[in-house]
Amino acid sequence: MTHYKLAFLGFGNVGKALARLLMEKRADIHNHYGVTFSVTAIATGRHGSAIDPEGIDLQAALEVQDYTSLSRLTPPVDAFDFIQRCGADVLFENSPVNYETGQPAADHLRLALEMGMHALTANKGPVVHAFRELTDLAKARGRKFYFESTVMDGAPIFSLFRETLPAARLLSLRGVLNSTTNMILTRMEQGESFEQAVAYCQQIGIAETDPSGDIDGWDASVKVAALVTVMMGVPFKPQQVERQGIRAITKEKIELARSQGKRWKLVCSAIREGQQVKARVAPELVGPDSPMYGVNGTTSIVQFETDVLGLLSVVEADPGPHTTAYGLLADFLNAVR
Amino acid sequence: MTHYKLAFLGFGNVGKALARLLMEKRADIHNHYGVTFSVTAIATGRHGSAIDPEGIDLQAALEVQDYTSLSRLTPPVDAFDFIQRCGADVLFENSPVNYETGQPAADHLRLALEMGMHALTANKGPVVHAFRELTDLAKARGRKFYFESTVMDGAPIFSLFRETLPAARLLSLRGVLNSTTNMILTRMEQGESFEQAVAYCQQIGIAETDPSGDIDGWDASVKVAALVTVMMGVPFKPQQVERQGIRAITKEKIELARSQGKRWKLVCSAIREGQQVKARVAPELVGPDSPMYGVNGTTSIVQFETDVLGLLSVVEADPGPHTTAYGLLADFLNAVR
Repeated sequence: MTHYKLAFLGFGNVGKALARLLMEKRADIHNHYGVTFSVTAIATGRHGSAIDPEGIDLQAALEVQDYTSLSRLTPPVDAFDFIQRCGADVLFENSPVNYETGQPAADHLRLALEMGMHALTANKGPVVHAFRELTDLAKARGRKFYFESTVMDGAPIFSLFRETLPAARLLSLRGVLNSTTNMILTRMEQGESFEQAVAYCQQIGIAETDPSGDIDGWDASVKVAALVTVMMGVPFKPQQVERQGIRAITKEKIELARSQGKRWKLVCSAIREGQQVKARVAPELVGPDSPMYGVNGTTSIVQFETDVLGLLSVVEADPGPHTTAYGLLADFLNAVR
Repeated sequence: MTHYKLAFLGFGNVGKALARLLMEKRADIHNHYGVTFSVTAIATGRHGSAIDPEGIDLQAALEVQDYTSLSRLTPPVDAFDFIQRCGADVLFENSPVNYETGQPAADHLRLALEMGMHALTANKGPVVHAFRELTDLAKARGRKFYFESTVMDGAPIFSLFRETLPAARLLSLRGVLNSTTNMILTRMEQGESFEQAVAYCQQIGIAETDPSGDIDGWDASVKVAALVTVMMGVPFKPQQVERQGIRAITKEKIELARSQGKRWKLVCSAIREGQQVKARVAPELVGPDSPMYGVNGTTSIVQFETDVLGLLSVVEADPGPHTTAYGLLADFLNAVR
């Protein structure tokens, strides 16, 4: 029986969903993995922070407006002070991140590893900007740097290769990895204009006020860069992805595609070329012979070509904060078992 | 650095493909997993058997007509004598099996575990007939009973749940798991008669002379029973699956489906109902909104509904003896790492 102390850096929708999931699965985790846990620290940007070495009541944390009220020790002055004093074995890093630098998340994760914690995150930034460094540091400290939820939410993608496909070499990949653009294209097929479809995505909370990060293929490029970096072992920046968004896909193009039995998808792809990798995000026409054809709305898919299997695809439907939270829980259990 | 001695019980298409894969990946396995290996024994029903504690030359084994010529010790008199004297750490069990009893494969695997070997198989029979017993025995001996290749060839299905989806509870599953019937339905959509499509499958080697095991849904039922037994934790026999094959699917029905934008698929399904599981294999109409719609020919798919993610599907294209062999290699590396 082993006990782990957990710290949450960031406690938004994903952090709260993870707290609920931890409460729900507490008995299961105890019975099946011999693991118990307590949450010793929660830090937020605007709602205060708490450190309690004896354990914070998660139900109370889900109900209070300011976490400072739950703190037994002096609340931390900033994220670094928090990591140094949280006393945890595992850090869940879900703070706001700058995708162009991966900061400050990468620095948070580095400090956590240096302090001897497992460093787990749903932030893509640190993966594309600091994967090698953080992975090497984790190995040197006997800890794990895991990030399952950064691509396709909690669906097993990185762990699929790490745990279930030993000695496989990834040759190429293709997929639909951005939910927002896929929802926009699906709604346009159903008759909405581009503007109407964007407004719908904003209304259901999957598009930002400025939706250009999704629409121009930037989010998809970050995901492709993360997959290439980790699974092909070739450091790759989002800026290296040949990128084209969906602004050129008009209702007329969608109608024409439909009359030919095809659909437009924002396809992510990467292929090895010698020692290099060529990666691309661009709209492509797909037919019913492709597993991408049936991928609607917020569903996502990735197809892997390896040297040992035929095409292997993973499809994930109905993502949300709870599935991202599950990826973090899986990272925790995979890190400690 | 650890050295493992491997024994092959059965050396047909899959065994030979595994031998080739082992040779091809030898350096990789050494470099990435710190594992070296030698093959100390090969047994076949009709081409003799060999035991050589100093290691059999795999290239030679792929070329000879009778393995007895490669034996340094007295060749074994039967499979049980072989297992007792093979001196291996890992048994790859791929001998002919009776699906109604799982024998003699289950007895082979039991003996191997009792002798302290990891017991790995591509045979479905022992999974549906002896999963609990062999898994408990393996645990008691500190060894593994793995069988990744029994469903969807080498694609990670059992290891997906075992390794990447900790604390997830499988609520239901749906899939297309029999390649032969899916190829027959695909060919019939392209205009062939049922008889022509069956003949094509026989010609490319994916249907038996008597194709009824596939056509009547028996193979699919064994696979569903294996998934339910292992992944839902409910012992389930193929005979408990409500089973209907594809004989009633005429060209007329296929045409009618096409005119409605749908396709017939032999769908496997299982769902928890309280403490019980209800499982079924039957033709169903699927539309373009389903990931099953784009599954053609020998491609297969399984969709999992869990309590932690949305629908998660795995799709595998282009199976063959080499992909089944990869599943066995993955089992080996997962067992020893």
